[in-house]
Amino acid sequence: MANAYFDHNSTTAIRPEVLSEMLPFMQTQHGNPTSRHVYGRNARDAVEAARAQVAKAVGVQANQVVFTSGGTEANNFAVHGITAGLARNGFEKGQILASAIEHPCVSRPAQALQAHGWQAKEVPVDENCRVKIDALEALLHAPSSLVSVMLANNETGALQDISQVVALARGKNVAVHTDAVQALGKIPVDFYELGVQAMTISSHKIGGPQGAGALVLDKRVDIEPLLYGGGQERGLRSGTENVGAIVGFGAACELAVQNLQEYQQKTAALQVKLEAGLKGMNATIFAGNAKRLPNTTFFAFEHIEGETLVTALDKAGYAVASGSACSSNSGEPSHVLLAMGVAEDLARGAVRVSFGSTNTAQEVDGFLTALQQEVARLKQYSAIAA
Amino acid sequence: MANAYFDHNSTTAIRPEVLSEMLPFMQTQHGNPTSRHVYGRNARDAVEAARAQVAKAVGVQANQVVFTSGGTEANNFAVHGITAGLARNGFEKGQILASAIEHPCVSRPAQALQAHGWQAKEVPVDENCRVKIDALEALLHAPSSLVSVMLANNETGALQDISQVVALARGKNVAVHTDAVQALGKIPVDFYELGVQAMTISSHKIGGPQGAGALVLDKRVDIEPLLYGGGQERGLRSGTENVGAIVGFGAACELAVQNLQEYQQKTAALQVKLEAGLKGMNATIFAGNAKRLPNTTFFAFEHIEGETLVTALDKAGYAVASGSACSSNSGEPSHVLLAMGVAEDLARGAVRVSFGSTNTAQEVDGFLTALQQEVARLKQYSAIAA
Repeated sequence: MANAYFDHNSTTAIRPEVLSEMLPFMQTQHGNPTSRHVYGRNARDAVEAARAQVAKAVGVQANQVVFTSGGTEANNFAVHGITAGLARNGFEKGQILASAIEHPCVSRPAQALQAHGWQAKEVPVDENCRVKIDALEALLHAPSSLVSVMLANNETGALQDISQVVALARGKNVAVHTDAVQALGKIPVDFYELGVQAMTISSHKIGGPQGAGALVLDKRVDIEPLLYGGGQERGLRSGTENVGAIVGFGAACELAVQNLQEYQQKTAALQVKLEAGLKGMNATIFAGNAKRLPNTTFFAFEHIEGETLVTALDKAGYAVASGSACSSNSGEPSHVLLAMGVAEDLARGAVRVSFGSTNTAQEVDGFLTALQQEVARLKQYSAIAA
Repeated sequence: MANAYFDHNSTTAIRPEVLSEMLPFMQTQHGNPTSRHVYGRNARDAVEAARAQVAKAVGVQANQVVFTSGGTEANNFAVHGITAGLARNGFEKGQILASAIEHPCVSRPAQALQAHGWQAKEVPVDENCRVKIDALEALLHAPSSLVSVMLANNETGALQDISQVVALARGKNVAVHTDAVQALGKIPVDFYELGVQAMTISSHKIGGPQGAGALVLDKRVDIEPLLYGGGQERGLRSGTENVGAIVGFGAACELAVQNLQEYQQKTAALQVKLEAGLKGMNATIFAGNAKRLPNTTFFAFEHIEGETLVTALDKAGYAVASGSACSSNSGEPSHVLLAMGVAEDLARGAVRVSFGSTNTAQEVDGFLTALQQEVARLKQYSAIAA
């Protein structure tokens, strides 16, 4: 079995250099960063060093980084915390506007807040997975509290022009949050260039461990915690810090920024090769005309179910995804593709390839060969069935 | 420097056997458990095997275990989720009753819910750190939604008779939650013997890694998520599973239960030795007459500040805590001791020793010698200052 891993948008392997940094804190250097003794102080120093690494990677100061257990928590924290902070300060409960292609860990907490008097609304996207700026502008005529638009979509890889979103929100007392989980390490991510008030990033998408993420905040944002308790993270996120994971997250951020150019060159070359092959096979490439991440290609063949193809490719030694991993339990076609106006039948065919910098051109060649075989085989079945 | 670690209630080192189980999932076996390919399926299998281990350790079925990022999240989830579940089902918003000695990750989310129409009330404790059952009974005359009483206190080690709490709540439509974070691995913990509807446990207090915990639920509890998103943990806790940490948590649970008797014998012998020495030095042992964890001793000397003593002992090579690690940033005396009616001055002297099974009698001897020296030295200073 070839065992080529083409599913880096789901999760990445921990880089060996990152694991080396983590291991001391999982072996001899155990300690609770809140403790005053030497074990505690060492753990505290490690957490703060990691915070500086993470901050530097996105162009902010260390005290703007709030560590969480991951991207999902950071997104929930942003939606819940920013709105709760506004309510505490006596502001009107306005609309929570999330783009139609947000990850459910943004859209679902927004919907859940409807029970508390907030109104969640979707900002539509076009056929290239780009937020319709005119629609957002129209929505913003009604009193609004928060806009959340992701920087790079996890499924199609399409990039949004966040500065346009920020420009519309400016002067309206509307906070802008961006989920940059899929962007970090793949394109340059600078908090102040984006101009947002809050940004989510995650460790396990960039060669760091699972179990760490962060919400990066503008200092003027008055946010309410999601997790209350011992008062860690300046009272904004309680709970004993996951020291090993945080150390790994810091190291992964540093490496991701250092290697960004090399990463982009390598994955873009693989993407070009892959997409040339796919076009030769008459595949549809979703958001094919959008500016996209260099590592992500989301495609489908007519009359071939994505899940069937993923299973066949897995047997052939290629790990790819059907839709986003997070929602793949549901059996429903991708909400991202439906929002783009893709027909339900074609959306059910969706397969995602997401490269990492360790993937090779040889792997892509092998993949295209396997894909051609499987597509031919499955087309035969569907012809018989038809 | 001796470097004896006597702060196991703050955090424990990961057992080497546990780390060995975790490492493959941080090296070659990376995968997102939601993915359908072989990497994802292996990760899923590992998470489910760990779930079975955790479930077995507390006497429940695997599908009653909801993994979280740790004890703080599980306690917040319990308080938020159970009350939100009741509200969704149309029940009246009754009192949330938490004992006065709960960890802030129970009491603070309860207080935060007051903004949403709930009423948070404290159940008092006696001088031995035991919940006043008659006071709880009186409080329960008013409509109540949730009672939360911890099984073992993190500071004094005092144990509560949860069955009494459960008996009072029965027939009143009041859910009972217990924070068993400090009890697991130290005393037998059986969910059904306790009779509660929800129970919190944590990995890094029992030789597992930081970053994993669980809320154990009675199947009849209709709980609302705290973290929404991809629908992991049967929709109750979204977010990519921290596979390595969960695997470690499972392994640590299995070992904790296997080694319980040996742990109790070892730590109890150290506790007897320590407390004999402390009594000889006229220390006050808090909750000294309560049934306590075998590993925990919380004590003070008159006119000696706990934090000063902790720092001096740290220099001498002994890692102990002043009050609970989580709140030790605040500079306030322990809320647990104040709730027990301990005078503020004496409460400021509090020092906690919490043993693990790797500690030795020799370490305790050395500690007592160092303590005697430091206490004598500090008493001289305070005599000069007086």
